[in-house]
Amino acid sequence: MAKDDDKLSAEDRLIARFFQPLATHPGALGLTDDAAFLTPPAGCDLVLKTDAIVGGVHFFQDDAAREVARKALRVNLSDLAAKGAAPLGFLLSLALPKEIGDDWLSDFAEGLRADAVEFGCPLFGGDTDRTPGPATISIAMFGSVPQGTMVRRAGAKAGDRVFVSGTIGDAALGLALRKKTHMGADWTLNAAQRQHLASRYLLPQPRNALAEAVRTHASAAMDVSDGLVGDLAKLARVSGVAAEIAVAQMPLSDAARAVIAAAPAMLETALTGGDDYEVVCTVAPEKAAGFHAAAQAAHVAVTEIGAIVAGEGAHFVGADGKPLAFKRASFSHF
Amino acid sequence: MAKDDDKLSAEDRLIARFFQPLATHPGALGLTDDAAFLTPPAGCDLVLKTDAIVGGVHFFQDDAAREVARKALRVNLSDLAAKGAAPLGFLLSLALPKEIGDDWLSDFAEGLRADAVEFGCPLFGGDTDRTPGPATISIAMFGSVPQGTMVRRAGAKAGDRVFVSGTIGDAALGLALRKKTHMGADWTLNAAQRQHLASRYLLPQPRNALAEAVRTHASAAMDVSDGLVGDLAKLARVSGVAAEIAVAQMPLSDAARAVIAAAPAMLETALTGGDDYEVVCTVAPEKAAGFHAAAQAAHVAVTEIGAIVAGEGAHFVGADGKPLAFKRASFSHF
Repeated sequence: MAKDDDKLSAEDRLIARFFQPLATHPGALGLTDDAAFLTPPAGCDLVLKTDAIVGGVHFFQDDAAREVARKALRVNLSDLAAKGAAPLGFLLSLALPKEIGDDWLSDFAEGLRADAVEFGCPLFGGDTDRTPGPATISIAMFGSVPQGTMVRRAGAKAGDRVFVSGTIGDAALGLALRKKTHMGADWTLNAAQRQHLASRYLLPQPRNALAEAVRTHASAAMDVSDGLVGDLAKLARVSGVAAEIAVAQMPLSDAARAVIAAAPAMLETALTGGDDYEVVCTVAPEKAAGFHAAAQAAHVAVTEIGAIVAGEGAHFVGADGKPLAFKRASFSHF
Repeated sequence: MAKDDDKLSAEDRLIARFFQPLATHPGALGLTDDAAFLTPPAGCDLVLKTDAIVGGVHFFQDDAAREVARKALRVNLSDLAAKGAAPLGFLLSLALPKEIGDDWLSDFAEGLRADAVEFGCPLFGGDTDRTPGPATISIAMFGSVPQGTMVRRAGAKAGDRVFVSGTIGDAALGLALRKKTHMGADWTLNAAQRQHLASRYLLPQPRNALAEAVRTHASAAMDVSDGLVGDLAKLARVSGVAAEIAVAQMPLSDAARAVIAAAPAMLETALTGGDDYEVVCTVAPEKAAGFHAAAQAAHVAVTEIGAIVAGEGAHFVGADGKPLAFKRASFSHF
């Protein structure tokens, strides 16, 4: 015979305590059902994305749970931003080693809650499991765009300008700094510069504020997550064009400039290392001024870094006008 | 400089080879974009669900990859069935240990493909990562129901009949048989009976054919995944009612009957062990005949096992008319 609350399983209690407060949408049914429901916005397409982060692979085991949670959400939010989509909500699938206790979960849930509020994406449902492996956080996120308007990787045309948001390379340099795998990895940075790079690795700043500007102006877009060089090559490939990028125009933070000045080889890390979570997009010349203005109104910095031409590949040209060659174009776990 | 196919990452190649063939919906863009899009069916709500399976926790490391894939999909399909929803598609998040090679992936993708076709749920996108832990397969599935008609756990009313699909307990007994953790675990079963129980654990048979009958007749429903006793207690709790179940009416397979005859204590395993992936639902008395007919037309066996009454809890009554007590109501990993 099964009675009431005394027979709530530990999993149910965990969900009720940590995750119900995030399930603010009525269709989430307070996480008391098998599934959630959502009435899609009229005249809209859904935009669907899933991305997972794994302990020891995408984050360090000693990273704060709150930042791990936000990173898991933000790597998905970044894709919605690049597709021009507004977030609707997310599903969470969590596999946890038994060492993880209530303190970690409490901080993790608080991180999720903070970002769910900031980005307007409530939790619709989830699944929690034990794993003998590392903590694995898989998010499925859904957003919406007016029907037929999702911005794709395909669509760039010869003559389009290439824009990128924010700054490039900070996260990859922040990771290198943390791992100290590069000779002289302190690069004589001051504390603020070190902190800037570290925080850019720890916590992505997805450009969801830019989504509407991208959707109404860009011919093609993607988020920069595996390194600008490789990501732009992918965009060029599916668009059937080439990209010509002027590295001298690349937006770099003070900290990244200092690193590259001290260790010029780190330019490759900056351009191919990934974890930027910026938006790269192509904009027809007649729309470029409008895109710039819309980005400014959204308080997101965007920089023109090159142009689309006939051909294939993504070609990066140095300040000396000579093409740059990279050992590998992008990060891959495989 | 990043050129074309020679710079495709290993991850991109893996996706192109194994998973692109599953991405048959035009909105999946052949998995060449950051996200997918889907125009929701007019007048419908989306139904959203995520569930993961972890190697060594939800399946055995030596289970065939094809069956692992199908199990991952089917545990989610089962929830859609119980909610009265038709599948639309799924997102896949895959974390793989480095021991897993192309043979495993090929079989895994073939299993997914077979079920995606059988259940009409194409792949919309995915994510593949390396993990130092066991293979972890997380599915986010979305379906649809006519607006406002998702069947909930809440909604059962005193007087409703309680129905369950298929047979109960086979998977839990199949698992016990496989783990040989119970004394005399061969229970003098014949080969066909052993095979029946084993296959019911290995590969769920979600009752998606029953979804429309559930949606048009049931006052409340859920899928039986954590054990009938505990699951029905959850349904009763959120409905604010009690369930009175006659164990003598419980649909049991020949194999389950043989086990329980040989080892009566295994009745508890059958009713609380979980992994059934059947549908339990409540139906108003005036709709019971219609539900039965609709289930028959859908070629899914359903059995009336009890009734909803005022009160709280799920009460199971034995053949002797005495209430049964269980050590624990349902399976929980926590």
